[in-house]
Formats: sequence, C-alpha cells, structure tokens
Amino acid sequence: MAKEISNAVIRRLPRYYRYLDELLENGTDRISSGDLSKSMHITASQIRQDLNNFGGFGQQGYGYNVQYLHDEIGKILGVDKVHNMIVIGMGNLGQAISRYAHFENLGVKMVGFFDVNPRLKDNLIRDIPIRMMDELPSFLKSQRVDMAALTIPRSHAAEVADQLISLGIKGIWNFALVDLEVPDDVVIQNVHLSDSLMELSYNYRMKQISDEK
Amino acid sequence: MAKEISNAVIRRLPRYYRYLDELLENGTDRISSGDLSKSMHITASQIRQDLNNFGGFGQQGYGYNVQYLHDEIGKILGVDKVHNMIVIGMGNLGQAISRYAHFENLGVKMVGFFDVNPRLKDNLIRDIPIRMMDELPSFLKSQRVDMAALTIPRSHAAEVADQLISLGIKGIWNFALVDLEVPDDVVIQNVHLSDSLMELSYNYRMKQISDEK
Repeated sequence: MAKEISNAVIRRLPRYYRYLDELLENGTDRISSGDLSKSMHITASQIRQDLNNFGGFGQQGYGYNVQYLHDEIGKILGVDKVHNMIVIGMGNLGQAISRYAHFENLGVKMVGFFDVNPRLKDNLIRDIPIRMMDELPSFLKSQRVDMAALTIPRSHAAEVADQLISLGIKGIWNFALVDLEVPDDVVIQNVHLSDSLMELSYNYRMKQISDEK
Repeated sequence: MAKEISNAVIRRLPRYYRYLDELLENGTDRISSGDLSKSMHITASQIRQDLNNFGGFGQQGYGYNVQYLHDEIGKILGVDKVHNMIVIGMGNLGQAISRYAHFENLGVKMVGFFDVNPRLKDNLIRDIPIRMMDELPSFLKSQRVDMAALTIPRSHAAEVADQLISLGIKGIWNFALVDLEVPDDVVIQNVHLSDSLMELSYNYRMKQISDEK
C-alpha cells in the first residue's frame, strides 16, 4: 500500500466492493475477470490492472475467489476499522443519513447528532439524543470523532465547517449545496444531490429530443 | 445545441450553475473568467472552453454577466422546464428527497410518492398522499410522469426499475445500492451514498497515515 494509488482507482473500489457483496449474497463464490467485466461494464484488463494495484487477487484459470476479494478490498477501504462520525443538521436528509444502519457495515459509526433547532433537542435517533450546536466543543473533547457529515443549508456550511476543523475534525462528508474550502490536512467528500438531479434532467431531455428525431 | 457535448462538460454545468447562483445571492453581477476560475478551481481556459460549447457568454475585458450566464446555463440544464417525478420508497431517504423543496427550483416537481408499507398509506407529504405500489400503473396512466427516484433496498431495485420502465418511465434517479441495467432509451443517474462514504473513509485514513509519517 506504499504505492500511490490513483483517485480513479480508489473511486472504483467501492463499486467493486458493492458488486462482490452482491455476488456473495447470491451465493457466487468464484468469478472470472471476464464475467466480472461483463457485469460491471469495465474491461477485463482494467479490472486486472486495478486489482494489481493491491497485489492482485486472481489465479490464472481459476478466476477470483469472491469472498477473499471482497474481504481484501473491504480492508483496503477500511470497512474493518471504525470511524466515528457526527451528523450536523437534523433535517430530513440529516435524519436519513443518521438512521441508515448500513453505514456501520462500512466501518462508519454515527456517534452524535447536532442541530440548532431547540425543538429537536433530546429527540432520540438510534438511542442517541440530538444535541444543540453549542454542545459541540465539549462533545468533541469527551469523545473521539473522526469525521462529520454536513447536512445543513449552504448559507451556514462554510462557517460550520470552519468550526469543525478548528475543533479537530479531519474528514467532512458535505451535503450542503456549496463546495467548501478546507486545509490540506482535511479530507472532504461532496454529495451534491442537486447537481446529480440536474445532470439526470439534462440527459433525460437530450434523450427525449434525440429519440423524437 | 446540435453539437455533441461531452459528458465531462455536462457534469460541470450544475457546478457552474451553483456557483453563479451563489454569486447572485451575494450580489455579484459581473465576474471575470479569472475570478470564476480561482473560486471554482478550474483553469480559466477550461471555463472559456466549456462555455464556448454553448456559444460562450463572455465579453472581452468585461467578464461574464452573472445573471445572464446563470439563466442561460439554467436553460441549458432545463431548470425552466417542469419534469414530473415520483419517488418510490418512503423510508428516511425517500422522504428527505420528497420533501426537499429546492428541487422545484431546478425544474423537477415531485408529483407522487409510493411505498409497499400499508402503515404509510395516505400519509401526506407536501399535501400528496403516499400511495401503495399497486396503484402505480393507474397513477401513471392518469398523470404525466417523466422520471422516478428509487429509494428502496437493493433486493427490489431491479424489479421495480423494470416495472417503471415497462410503464413508460424514461429517467431513473437511483439511490439503491446497485447499478441497474436499463434499455438505451432510458436515462439513469446513480447516487451511491455508500460508495461516497467509503471513498471519504479511505481518503481520511490515507491522510492520517501520511500525516503521521
């Protein structure tokens, strides 16, 4: 793992993990790079090249052992670690993220929920009370927190991100409608649902136009 | 617009739209490609090249008129159109998507909500009752629906997507943890939150390791 791995490969790994997880669920215990290629729409040579970044996992003429490949990619992705995450913003999206139990299978544990709305105070989400934002500094002192999900309006996102970073948070999962500037030692991952929806609408409309021709 | 526009450009357009929207909110009415470049971390020449795909919008020595550029990109993205969308799966994420009023500003109107859980039947979301899945065919006959958001478990996603497509839906916003196979005349856009979270964890962990060195 000393080798520098390109972002493109890293971005494909969760997808491999997802496919392998599905294969396991369907009881498939072995798959050729050709079959994996067909179902994932990635060339077999790309797959071999990707997996070689991590020492490869295949055996000539046998294909990949699904369970082994699944677990090894999982380790690379860190699903066997536990990263503690807090969620800032208990609107609908924040609550959805907070309640999604599957994230724990991926090594991310939701340990705290924060909002500014006093009516939400002490409401329980997965047995954890929603806290007010002014409790954030003392909470972060009393508990190891690695990352924070930001599900708040754009207007407050930069300010809250700065606060989180000043309190030592090094990873931000940003759902706010804005690209945040963060220092070099902080990792940020954006989920811009609006961008995704606009891309869908655009492609939908273009397809309609081209199909009418 | 007859010209073929690359997916990479299309994928950047919502981001331009978002930045311009923010500039408008801050009262900025004019911006140079240099300043836009700095705030978006895209080279000025890339910006000029991107916007030239649509006839360009800049004036030498004046920069871009923010309102005009915003509105024109909005038109390209179709935010001035109305696309009707239904949401399948009224769990936390489905409800979050359904209640997010901002999507209407982007030209997408939520017109129907569906689930299989009878306890949710007739609960109102934005004054629209949640319907049961067996009402889907008659609903789609009585009402124009362009696209569907899928916020259901992976195990049912393929089957429900097939049903939607057979009933005439041509655009799918897929949040299920699986890549769906769709016919050529159907547009699909995936939001894989788990992939995004795994990428964040991985990058977070790598950064921690490299910072410890």
